[in-house]
Amino acid sequence: MILDQVTATAFAPATIANVAVGFDLLGFPIEGVGDEVTVSRSAGPGVEITKIEGINQNITLEADKNTATVGLIQLLKDVNADFGFSVSIKKGIPMSSGMGGSASSAVAAIVAANALLDHPLPKEKLFHYAMLGEMVASGGLHGDNIAPALFGGLTLCRSISPPDLISIPVPSRIQCILIHPDLEVSTKESRGKLKKEISLSDHVRQSAAMGGFIAGCFKDDLDLIQRSFKDVIIEPQRSSQIPGFIEAKKTALGLGAIGCAISGSGPSVFAWADTAERAEMIREAMIQEFKIKGLKCESWISPISTQGARLSS
Amino acid sequence: MILDQVTATAFAPATIANVAVGFDLLGFPIEGVGDEVTVSRSAGPGVEITKIEGINQNITLEADKNTATVGLIQLLKDVNADFGFSVSIKKGIPMSSGMGGSASSAVAAIVAANALLDHPLPKEKLFHYAMLGEMVASGGLHGDNIAPALFGGLTLCRSISPPDLISIPVPSRIQCILIHPDLEVSTKESRGKLKKEISLSDHVRQSAAMGGFIAGCFKDDLDLIQRSFKDVIIEPQRSSQIPGFIEAKKTALGLGAIGCAISGSGPSVFAWADTAERAEMIREAMIQEFKIKGLKCESWISPISTQGARLSS
Repeated sequence: MILDQVTATAFAPATIANVAVGFDLLGFPIEGVGDEVTVSRSAGPGVEITKIEGINQNITLEADKNTATVGLIQLLKDVNADFGFSVSIKKGIPMSSGMGGSASSAVAAIVAANALLDHPLPKEKLFHYAMLGEMVASGGLHGDNIAPALFGGLTLCRSISPPDLISIPVPSRIQCILIHPDLEVSTKESRGKLKKEISLSDHVRQSAAMGGFIAGCFKDDLDLIQRSFKDVIIEPQRSSQIPGFIEAKKTALGLGAIGCAISGSGPSVFAWADTAERAEMIREAMIQEFKIKGLKCESWISPISTQGARLSS
Repeated sequence: MILDQVTATAFAPATIANVAVGFDLLGFPIEGVGDEVTVSRSAGPGVEITKIEGINQNITLEADKNTATVGLIQLLKDVNADFGFSVSIKKGIPMSSGMGGSASSAVAAIVAANALLDHPLPKEKLFHYAMLGEMVASGGLHGDNIAPALFGGLTLCRSISPPDLISIPVPSRIQCILIHPDLEVSTKESRGKLKKEISLSDHVRQSAAMGGFIAGCFKDDLDLIQRSFKDVIIEPQRSSQIPGFIEAKKTALGLGAIGCAISGSGPSVFAWADTAERAEMIREAMIQEFKIKGLKCESWISPISTQGARLSS
């Protein structure tokens, strides 16, 4: 066996999941923020985390509990590897921010590790391994962060097993404003609080929104996307966990945002705008609303990134 | 005032609503079966039903209770008409068949009546009036029969008020098999029996189906349409009302149908096939399954008709 490569580094972007209309189903990545994972082949056996750096230091070093490495353990088993992995994680995504940090780490790790296999798997096969990590983190089976972090673009995760990931076109002029107020919301806890039953009429309204939104994306019809940009099921249950969200949303829509919603399980929130100028305006106004509630914010403006995870050169 | 025209006749097609993935939201018309309504201007005031002929004779002649005429009463009020309408209905759609008979009558009547106005309204404005009739019939606010009967094509009825009707492209090679077993199911009763609450996880599964189905239609991707062609919420509650449906569906899918589901609230059922030959095969096999249960069937094979209601020349 010839070791062509002993170390690989991959970056995976932050992702915005749910996207108002598609709880547990829709997500997209943004540019400019994400996690980076460096994997090295080791004598093994198994997977060892050697370092976690970046903005979160509070993450477990136990490989069978860390979202970045759970998939790698399974990968090594599945390929009957006679080597192990040592892993170094550089977190760029704030912890419990609703920006898909666990997915980003899981995806970056599997993309890097895959590059070190004697026979790397096609990217489609990596979804499953990244999902193993996500399950540890979020306590629910949803692929709406993993799929866009891995493949890029607005992605409908119709089914996880077998994976059925559908790329949805997005009008290219859309700019996404992402605001991260300085709060922590645990995905696991937030999911646990959701009502297990919903009314049939809310289901119909929300399905209508999903259908209209997807059609609007394919038709390149911003008005239809705007009319469909609704979450009547999850948002009413979560908005009170994020002081300032209701006000920020109202302000964003008042300034002409196409839509505004909670990113994943929050506390990050996002809005879509039709121009970069309007996006700037909306960002400032939303930050102001959180400031009134005493919350500092980080923020980004990005197109709906078509780039998913990639190896660092 | 000059009476340019004193009588008009319009035809509106039968429609298949819900379409598995979109309860109360999606519908399309088929060719070869529908209702025809002839409207004449009368001295008035108000609306009078003079005749109901065709395959259903059991329909009320009271204009304020008949689905065909409720909208006409409101139309006359709204345009401050100094005349009335006399209406003759020719039913081509079997009663309580799940083939959108009430919508067809309501739509044909309003299209004919509109042609007799001094200033006919644009077709978009007729949706509201046809809906008034549908509400009398079905006991629920859903436009998934009215919209396709009026405009043609696969239509997503995202909102009723204000109307937001979205035309969804359908792969042109699709052939629809419609089977009407000799049973009657009241839409009102059938709706009344539906569970008012559903689980969040079923909602997510069904939304995924809606999203995948709409994307599949835009992508012209029959495989994706097939994978998405699911109803995990309504069908399990209604299938027992239609002896033979479960068997007919299994048979249709076994023969390569893209999908098979209940049409509206049943008892009619439909399937999609990718060729006319396969559609014939599926039709025969489905009829056979109902025959085993002692049920005779009427049946049709049609493309997803792009034609909605039209005036008869």
